[in-house]
Amino acid sequence: MTFPTYFETLDIKQILADHPIGDDFLTKFRSISRDELFALQDAQFRKVMARGWQIPFYQRLWGNEGIEAGDINGLADIAKLPVYDKQHLMASIAEHPPLGDFGGLDTFGSGGAARPPMVLHTTSGTTGRPQPLMFGPKGREVINLLVGRLYRWLGVHSGDVVHSVYGHGMINGGHFIREAVTHFTNALFLSAGTGIETRSVAQVHLMADFQASVVVGFVDYIRKLAEVAKTEGVFDRIPARLIIGHLGTEDRSAIESAWSGARAYDWYGVGDTGPIAAEGPDRDGLYVWEDAHYLELLDIDSGASVGKGETGDMVVTCLFKDDIAPCIRFNTHDITQEMDGQGEIAFRRIAGFRGRSDNMVKLRGINLFPHAISGLIEARADLTGEYVCHLRRDATGRDEMEVTLESRGGTDVADLAALLRRGLGVDVAVTLCAPGGTAAMTQVETRQKPIRLIDARA
Amino acid sequence: MTFPTYFETLDIKQILADHPIGDDFLTKFRSISRDELFALQDAQFRKVMARGWQIPFYQRLWGNEGIEAGDINGLADIAKLPVYDKQHLMASIAEHPPLGDFGGLDTFGSGGAARPPMVLHTTSGTTGRPQPLMFGPKGREVINLLVGRLYRWLGVHSGDVVHSVYGHGMINGGHFIREAVTHFTNALFLSAGTGIETRSVAQVHLMADFQASVVVGFVDYIRKLAEVAKTEGVFDRIPARLIIGHLGTEDRSAIESAWSGARAYDWYGVGDTGPIAAEGPDRDGLYVWEDAHYLELLDIDSGASVGKGETGDMVVTCLFKDDIAPCIRFNTHDITQEMDGQGEIAFRRIAGFRGRSDNMVKLRGINLFPHAISGLIEARADLTGEYVCHLRRDATGRDEMEVTLESRGGTDVADLAALLRRGLGVDVAVTLCAPGGTAAMTQVETRQKPIRLIDARA
Repeated sequence: MTFPTYFETLDIKQILADHPIGDDFLTKFRSISRDELFALQDAQFRKVMARGWQIPFYQRLWGNEGIEAGDINGLADIAKLPVYDKQHLMASIAEHPPLGDFGGLDTFGSGGAARPPMVLHTTSGTTGRPQPLMFGPKGREVINLLVGRLYRWLGVHSGDVVHSVYGHGMINGGHFIREAVTHFTNALFLSAGTGIETRSVAQVHLMADFQASVVVGFVDYIRKLAEVAKTEGVFDRIPARLIIGHLGTEDRSAIESAWSGARAYDWYGVGDTGPIAAEGPDRDGLYVWEDAHYLELLDIDSGASVGKGETGDMVVTCLFKDDIAPCIRFNTHDITQEMDGQGEIAFRRIAGFRGRSDNMVKLRGINLFPHAISGLIEARADLTGEYVCHLRRDATGRDEMEVTLESRGGTDVADLAALLRRGLGVDVAVTLCAPGGTAAMTQVETRQKPIRLIDARA
Repeated sequence: MTFPTYFETLDIKQILADHPIGDDFLTKFRSISRDELFALQDAQFRKVMARGWQIPFYQRLWGNEGIEAGDINGLADIAKLPVYDKQHLMASIAEHPPLGDFGGLDTFGSGGAARPPMVLHTTSGTTGRPQPLMFGPKGREVINLLVGRLYRWLGVHSGDVVHSVYGHGMINGGHFIREAVTHFTNALFLSAGTGIETRSVAQVHLMADFQASVVVGFVDYIRKLAEVAKTEGVFDRIPARLIIGHLGTEDRSAIESAWSGARAYDWYGVGDTGPIAAEGPDRDGLYVWEDAHYLELLDIDSGASVGKGETGDMVVTCLFKDDIAPCIRFNTHDITQEMDGQGEIAFRRIAGFRGRSDNMVKLRGINLFPHAISGLIEARADLTGEYVCHLRRDATGRDEMEVTLESRGGTDVADLAALLRRGLGVDVAVTLCAPGGTAAMTQVETRQKPIRLIDARA
């Protein structure tokens, strides 16, 4: 059988023209006007919509709302389309196992004979059952490029050694970042993976032996590696200069003080979409990669567009993903707000991940994000920074949250409870345990993102 | 900083012309004459030698033998060059940590500014400390292509789902096979990895849910998955048709009867070189990929070329690897012999992996390969196929080997000892244990290749 290889299906020159990296990236997006940018987005959006209309999942999603192809005449009409989320994708998979009908694979002929090579992974299952992720060559390489662009903008160069703690196996993360660095930067890449793939002790020796200057992944584990490096006596041999990961609601100073001297940068994306927004060297908000994504912030309840500074669900449309599994108004249920003013390039800026609207806990009428605790305690030397929350309902029907925190000793429980009450806006019970005491509950050693909330209400 | 991406440094059209896949592969190598093939090899070899002379490792290796560039006028002169092996590479790394001086990285300018993107992994450490493996884009994609070519020759098509149990993390295997399938076949790829990355129970459900039709990796673990699939009740839902892996000295019938109805195929390669030889659909010996590799079989003691049918060390020169870390007369210390006659294509054929010359055990004067036990016991339903050998020296200085085998019950120890004595040519002590009883010693769950020999002599 004859079919093109992965490389032959890629038009890398066109991709680099549409989504420049390195110096070309800054040159183009420092000077572009908002109107020019919208025109680029609009042209891509029309292609993505044409592809969407070929796909049963979107035919059903849009058809159920009575929408016809002629109703959407470009990006200006996007709000007429319904949003969808992971639940829609999982329902599609349940009806059409194992891949659902949102990939558009049926459009490539029987048995996929005319399908381009395809990348298949799953999410890590942080927010439920792992979900298949599908990419065609173009969709895949654009997200790789966006990571490579980001790393290079933050100063990653040919002499750098990038140590990655993103996991492999079926999970997308590690493979994705490995491709990004290998294909679009000139740095050396160490695919260490999670502490299960490469034990933490082996990781820090690897970092010392190979002179890791950039560490990428989820910051909880990267912070833990600093402790291990000290215990192993190799901390001073690791020249970590940059930490590029997902700071979430945590303050960056915790990770920067753990890896003294390193600078930490935040970026945001989900498995389906790749990188949506990232901090630049100025670390003044996350620039939305607007040449590749159209990001809307929608009110959690009404679904209406929110104003600048107001909190909303991030709903994303991947403008480049017109081959396999287009992503048109995907509600991530991650919330943020848009920032005021103008940054270094023309792209809009958001405040970064502020919590998940569907993980938000209502405790006695107060909206509460358990992850916010990280930021509240990060400066305290008496705590390790690890914690876990238990939500329970007592016999009277009253909800209580107990926060268990790891103390190195010398912690005043009443003081700490007052700090959490001020930060969270609601009373919580505080319990202390020894360092490492929450690991079994948070699974920090084995999960990409530790568990911070255990909801034990009926 | 501006430099070409991975894709821009690749001349995929030239690679496919030099190393065709699919129908083009058969068309070209069914009809090529041995003289034409040698001419293709010779032209590539001259380029590889030119690159070799730029690299300190080879300058030293060859210079120490008094060889000058003018002494080697093509492939006909290759035997004038010394061989090297993993020990030379590890010594180079010890002197020039962490990557040694065999990659040629210094030739790309300071800080690697002019170095092409590069792939860095390690071996799995089966035969000692993990060794760094380095590839430039061309070197990498040719080995990927050779795997893709093999899989397609064996019948892997666009409708197939390939389940891989090769490990990830820093190890090359899993990443390499993932690239091969994604870049050069149209099959769907499941990067499950080892039992540590994806637990065995999860693996068999994944295989059932995604309808895995091809299973690739090390056969010990693939055989174990068949047992797990039966325990989990999903065996009949897994349409495994092809098993493509490394049969080594084991008989293929053990894995084929475990996955009833599947056909198993063997291929051989090492981390530094990629695939060197592989069975075709005829399963009559392993065809040496002679458009990409020049393979010599050399006497273990004298280093002289051995005749057809005689056992020798496989010494390989990668004809395509002229960018990073050329591989010129690398002694794998894996032994085999060349086969007589002519196969379906013009490439020479070898008998496959017959053991490691440096793992060969001398037991009371007899050369013995512990791995040969797999083949001797594979047909016995009373045994699980798992075993481990202990070599011990008693107070009188006499060496003894104890073989511990897993029995499902009903095994006659004396009969089994006689079978092993006939097959190995020397008396060994036989101990039986329950199924699973050797797992802690062989580490079959966590290692790519289980440990079969524990040498406890002083």
